Amino acid sequence: MTDSQDQKPSVKARLPRGLADRGPAEIAATQRMMQAIRETYELYGFEAVETPFIEYTEALGKFLPDLDRPNEGVFSFQDDDEQWLSLRYDLTAPLARYVAENYERIAKPYRSYRAGYVFRNEKPGPGRFRQFMQFDADTVGSASVAADAEICMMAADTLERLGVGRGDYVVKVNNRKVLDGVLEAAGLAGEGRAAQRLIVLRAIDKLDRLGPEGVRLLLGPGRKDESGDFTKGADLAASAIERIIAFTQARAADNAGTVGRLADAVGASERGQEGVRELREIADLCDAAGYGDGRVTIDPAVVRGLEYYTGPVYEAELLFEAKDEAGRPMRFGSVGGGGRYDGLVARFRGEPVPATGFSVGVSRLLAALQAIKSPILDAQALRGPVVVLVMDKDQVARYQGFVARLRAAGVRAEMYLGAAGMNAQLKYADRRNAPCAVIQGSNEREKGEVTIRDLALGAQLAAATKDRADYLELRQRAQFSVSEDRLVEAVREVLGR
Amino acid sequence: MTDSQDQKPSVKARLPRGLADRGPAEIAATQRMMQAIRETYELYGFEAVETPFIEYTEALGKFLPDLDRPNEGVFSFQDDDEQWLSLRYDLTAPLARYVAENYERIAKPYRSYRAGYVFRNEKPGPGRFRQFMQFDADTVGSASVAADAEICMMAADTLERLGVGRGDYVVKVNNRKVLDGVLEAAGLAGEGRAAQRLIVLRAIDKLDRLGPEGVRLLLGPGRKDESGDFTKGADLAASAIERIIAFTQARAADNAGTVGRLADAVGASERGQEGVRELREIADLCDAAGYGDGRVTIDPAVVRGLEYYTGPVYEAELLFEAKDEAGRPMRFGSVGGGGRYDGLVARFRGEPVPATGFSVGVSRLLAALQAIKSPILDAQALRGPVVVLVMDKDQVARYQGFVARLRAAGVRAEMYLGAAGMNAQLKYADRRNAPCAVIQGSNEREKGEVTIRDLALGAQLAAATKDRADYLELRQRAQFSVSEDRLVEAVREVLGR
Repeated sequence: MTDSQDQKPSVKARLPRGLADRGPAEIAATQRMMQAIRETYELYGFEAVETPFIEYTEALGKFLPDLDRPNEGVFSFQDDDEQWLSLRYDLTAPLARYVAENYERIAKPYRSYRAGYVFRNEKPGPGRFRQFMQFDADTVGSASVAADAEICMMAADTLERLGVGRGDYVVKVNNRKVLDGVLEAAGLAGEGRAAQRLIVLRAIDKLDRLGPEGVRLLLGPGRKDESGDFTKGADLAASAIERIIAFTQARAADNAGTVGRLADAVGASERGQEGVRELREIADLCDAAGYGDGRVTIDPAVVRGLEYYTGPVYEAELLFEAKDEAGRPMRFGSVGGGGRYDGLVARFRGEPVPATGFSVGVSRLLAALQAIKSPILDAQALRGPVVVLVMDKDQVARYQGFVARLRAAGVRAEMYLGAAGMNAQLKYADRRNAPCAVIQGSNEREKGEVTIRDLALGAQLAAATKDRADYLELRQRAQFSVSEDRLVEAVREVLGR
Repeated sequence: MTDSQDQKPSVKARLPRGLADRGPAEIAATQRMMQAIRETYELYGFEAVETPFIEYTEALGKFLPDLDRPNEGVFSFQDDDEQWLSLRYDLTAPLARYVAENYERIAKPYRSYRAGYVFRNEKPGPGRFRQFMQFDADTVGSASVAADAEICMMAADTLERLGVGRGDYVVKVNNRKVLDGVLEAAGLAGEGRAAQRLIVLRAIDKLDRLGPEGVRLLLGPGRKDESGDFTKGADLAASAIERIIAFTQARAADNAGTVGRLADAVGASERGQEGVRELREIADLCDAAGYGDGRVTIDPAVVRGLEYYTGPVYEAELLFEAKDEAGRPMRFGSVGGGGRYDGLVARFRGEPVPATGFSVGVSRLLAALQAIKSPILDAQALRGPVVVLVMDKDQVARYQGFVARLRAAGVRAEMYLGAAGMNAQLKYADRRNAPCAVIQGSNEREKGEVTIRDLALGAQLAAATKDRADYLELRQRAQFSVSEDRLVEAVREVLGR
């Protein structure tokens, strides 16, 4: 009894909530996807940069784009010198630190991209992880909206390279300045109205979920949801509400039409007019390069992150329908977004440094590519190794030699390393998804032969009835012997089937 | 004055000590190196797995191989549920958690590989980082030393694939059981002698640095170093000391010879004899597969990690000399190591699960490959983009169109996005390592032409004297005009030079 007590495991093996392990299929698919994104970004002149996972807490600041997520959502700890460090919560704040620290050395405008995990210390939920991957591209040091237009076109090219068909996605563009102009025209300018403007911003951020009617209520008297909870409204006048709603619905048949409507919506607001000019320039650049065909579209309904960004805002959205796990139709929606932001680098430099950037949510994009069976996620590479069985323990060096020959020929192969018998070894080979097993018992050895067993054909054979006309032929192909020196050749034949 | 006060940077941009940013050249070189390692490991039947950076602190345990580094060397923090979490300090402890948690689902023996950053909360120093990358391969669930032999051969193949020539490296193999046997034969068996054995282990761990004479002192009366510090010795009898030293020097001309000497060194110790049998089996397997030619060598002087491992131990060592930064000859030495360990998975499962693994120090290996100018680190991919200059701000859409055509043809290209004049734009192109610049001022535009400037040739030209016979021809090749529709063709010609 004491013995079995000693055997009791001392620690429970459990992954902390909100974190995930990844197997070979997901790793390979992610790598192929990232490689395709990298190649597109490189083509656009962006260059790779990598910063560490850890930064000084003060360097990260309180710059989470979504203000509903407080800074407490960051994992922080002290080092051996008792300085506060944090795990990065996005890839933008570390980039700002990097640019500021290496400002004189960097050729500007600085186009860079980087991919990696970021961390959030918050309650995980379905599809909400505490470690997740982002893939960012940013242009720092350019005030020209040509930089924004370029990133929008790059996002479109990236999606197509990943196998998303034209028409199945759109890169939507909006501008914070236009919204500011609309608010000004609606009589909401000035310091004293900041709180009201914030309520308006948050209200139109819910457009997707509540529709124009719901947003109208939030801009006016307030809204009671199904559960009976009441959200206080912005108490705007009817004319102001209609101006704001008109702005969000200003999308026309083409970009020129949309820009024209926006010019009306901002009225005499100078800031608003500046925003409209910027959108017009982006539209012109995209149209001139052929992206105005629905790939890059001015859409004032895009409001995600408008609270955070200071100029153009853009979002890449997938339009096709897929099925969720329960078979219900669903849309993936946004797979990336970004915009122009000021102040991040300025925190370190004391002078404004214009910048614009785009961030892809890697796992959501991967799920979307899996849903459309993107050709870049080809599963061929995931075939398991050829497994050489160990029939006689004292012949291990001989089996090892078979494996070495296969590997030297570029064939993925391994010798079974466990202690089980032949049936269990074949079962192992099946579980490894091995294309075939190589078998040499004493009989075969004496004849200088090896037996090759095609495991895919073997599975078919097991399912087939013996009445099949070609049953014998099938059986012969599923398992056959060749002389040892023809091992590689025979295995290659099976791999080619 | 108030204004300039407002502009004062609020935060200093600084990377915490012991952490590093990485630029495009290092990132690309690392990726190519990792890809080559992955391909070799896949060929051996290993499959990828990835675990998160964060684990429950209790799941990581106190398993740092080097006992001089206490558990306090780990970055730990609490999550929103006040549970203690830690950043992984190696890739082995998370693998153990993963295997234990998914034990029934995994086909065993389980060959897997994984690469990623690990973190140590300790004083950084030269070449000692708080975030660094490891590349591990492990076989879990096989008690057969064929698994160890396989990993040793795989390490050899990996180095050759990375461009390290045969003869420029060796994979050395030792066995903890043999050392235990030698200690037993030297009269150091039993519970009461554990502390003394630990001193002995640490003493022979310093063999590289102190040589046999220094280790003799540490095994005997103790040793005073140059600074006058005295290290207490193990106070062994002379015969015990000589037995231990003889063990460390037992390497013979070939593996069979070495194994023979080790059989003598362990005397009647059963555990020692078991270790010798294991080494003989490894040597036989490697010899049979052709790796006994100096690629995989039994070497009892390998003691790194012997304190931690429970059976075979192996280490991949580079033998060539390189120059350090000061031009002095230096050796890279060990670039990876590993061995057989028990207990890690057992902590979770309550039953022993045999395992053996190998870990590569990625940055040291990369430095070594850079020193030998390994062909896999080809720098060609790091050529910058073609830069299209902006000569007239109102022609930006036109320049954007040039860039779009180049990109569509697969040529890395960008339009200059800053606000500077022509000279600064050319300087920018130089700093980006651009192969050429594309220029169209109003003159060229009226003629429907573009000017291509070969920046490499341009630099040569600037350095050349005008007396050169081919000066004019060179100048013509360095900068020439073509009609707009021949843009891609002309750029390709320059890229091909």
